[in-house]
Amino acid sequence: MSAPPSGGGPLGPGREFDLIRRLTAGLPADGPGVILGPGDDAALLEGGWAVTCDLTVEGVHFRRDWMHPESAGGRAVRAALSDLAAMAAEPVGILVALAGDERDHRSGLLEAVGRGARAAAAACGAALLGGDVTRSPGPLVIDVTALGRAATPLRRSGARAGHELWVTGRLGGAGAAVRLLTRGLVPEPILQDALIRPTPRLAEARWLADTGEVSALLDLSDGLAGDAGHLAAASGVELEIDADAVPVGPEVMEALDPVEALGVAVAAGEDYELLFAAPPGFAKRRSAFLERFPGVELTRIGSAHGVGRRGPRVAFIRRGREWTPPSGFDHFGGEAT
Amino acid sequence: MSAPPSGGGPLGPGREFDLIRRLTAGLPADGPGVILGPGDDAALLEGGWAVTCDLTVEGVHFRRDWMHPESAGGRAVRAALSDLAAMAAEPVGILVALAGDERDHRSGLLEAVGRGARAAAAACGAALLGGDVTRSPGPLVIDVTALGRAATPLRRSGARAGHELWVTGRLGGAGAAVRLLTRGLVPEPILQDALIRPTPRLAEARWLADTGEVSALLDLSDGLAGDAGHLAAASGVELEIDADAVPVGPEVMEALDPVEALGVAVAAGEDYELLFAAPPGFAKRRSAFLERFPGVELTRIGSAHGVGRRGPRVAFIRRGREWTPPSGFDHFGGEAT
Repeated sequence: MSAPPSGGGPLGPGREFDLIRRLTAGLPADGPGVILGPGDDAALLEGGWAVTCDLTVEGVHFRRDWMHPESAGGRAVRAALSDLAAMAAEPVGILVALAGDERDHRSGLLEAVGRGARAAAAACGAALLGGDVTRSPGPLVIDVTALGRAATPLRRSGARAGHELWVTGRLGGAGAAVRLLTRGLVPEPILQDALIRPTPRLAEARWLADTGEVSALLDLSDGLAGDAGHLAAASGVELEIDADAVPVGPEVMEALDPVEALGVAVAAGEDYELLFAAPPGFAKRRSAFLERFPGVELTRIGSAHGVGRRGPRVAFIRRGREWTPPSGFDHFGGEAT
Repeated sequence: MSAPPSGGGPLGPGREFDLIRRLTAGLPADGPGVILGPGDDAALLEGGWAVTCDLTVEGVHFRRDWMHPESAGGRAVRAALSDLAAMAAEPVGILVALAGDERDHRSGLLEAVGRGARAAAAACGAALLGGDVTRSPGPLVIDVTALGRAATPLRRSGARAGHELWVTGRLGGAGAAVRLLTRGLVPEPILQDALIRPTPRLAEARWLADTGEVSALLDLSDGLAGDAGHLAAASGVELEIDADAVPVGPEVMEALDPVEALGVAVAAGEDYELLFAAPPGFAKRRSAFLERFPGVELTRIGSAHGVGRRGPRVAFIRRGREWTPPSGFDHFGGEAT
């Protein structure tokens, strides 16, 4: 999400969400065969199916001088599968729609994108089920539809006052890589990987769902500040986040100055970690999680409260006072206008 | 499909199909939860679900001086739902991914596209389940994922030697409209509608499936010549089509000279009528079909034969001799290079 906050509602603030909100206004939440309609990370269909799509555009989400076409295809798939993780669903298959110009058709670039998409899907247990390929006079466009099954789907809407807010992994890697690339620098491999080969937290999300103790879950695609806003809006709570507790990646701290490092960790997005809420008792599960997923951090960063006059919102606290994170980053590291 | 024939295989000839074929090469036809993988009009999943996607690009599939943004959105949805018809599936929902430039975001154009998409879906019994919206430096891009349920799915692969080939409706309307618009002329409303508001033959397809007598089915998106090639390839048969029997729309005959009219009816595509094969006994069903769907023609145009040395192919017969239809049209009415 790259636009400044401009509204409330179940999807939280943001111009793109405003558009989706208007389009889905007045629609029933379900219909024949539909368990859950628009507004969460994926729709839910009868038979336990979850379905979502994620659109990637060259020049907005990636630059071809920053990553190989196979990586662009793989990254698009990983981003879409992360939306399945956000529902605690298990991936089954993907559809890939590709638009590229005449030269990309001829040069085999589209095929490389498709190969990368297929490989990333296979690595996550999803089959390539179909797709569409067309010419375009414009930039490379990759739309990935991801389908999975959720035995115990987790929505964004179950956080209640008193619940604690948790995040997996460490944040800011993808944002830091973009910052460095924009400055003409080469990020170290771990940051490069965070941008190019993000890991959808699929098994972690299902493990969390299996505990029966998680009340709300989503994945961090728009950045902690934006996505926490979505969780707050969907659950009807105020979230208080301790900015000093946000797990910033050590490589991010090394690559950027401390203020910028916290900024990308909180606002740059595309980390594809999980953000979830759970009652206080969840803390006792932490060691079992760390044992099951070695190398994946699990950090309590805040808590949910009843809403005040300002409605559902997110308040960051830094050094004891409310702190306003950067207002939003576009995908290329600049703050949004 | 806009490229010259360049290969065989289950998807039939064509460059885009070559790409899809290479991407799906070596993939298992199914997996956990998957009944049918790539290669037909839609994939089939456990629980009777059918899923497909259709990508529409401004400047390739539509021009904004030819149709209102609402119409572009509606047309994209109708094209995707036609792929569900091609499996004899009943629509349940759609996902819509939209990319547009800054001006289109600001002007409300993307919202109009979304409104048109939502209305077309609703008219066909499908709900808007979700989607994605993003900025793009390029043309307007609309990717529609369509989900439906197929109690008795019909594939492309069941035509056998001796079966007859049938087509619904009349062909060439969309192609004729494009021809006229390209020449700066205004098509009459029935041709305009054929281009802008094509009718996916959803109920017709399910009726056909219910007869239990249809052996292979697909929808005419790439043009009769191309799509018959797909059916021939998937079924492993040679199709002989009587060009003189092809039901060219009377408005098409009026708008274009006879050779050009037949050309667009056979090769221009985007008519979204159904092409299917059935054993000879099917002819007795015709009057019941016409009674159930008044105004929708049902025409026998050819028959299936065993393959010769040239493998699965389509032979058009005109005035008693084999006839080569135009080699392919791009979406704007020119023959492909």
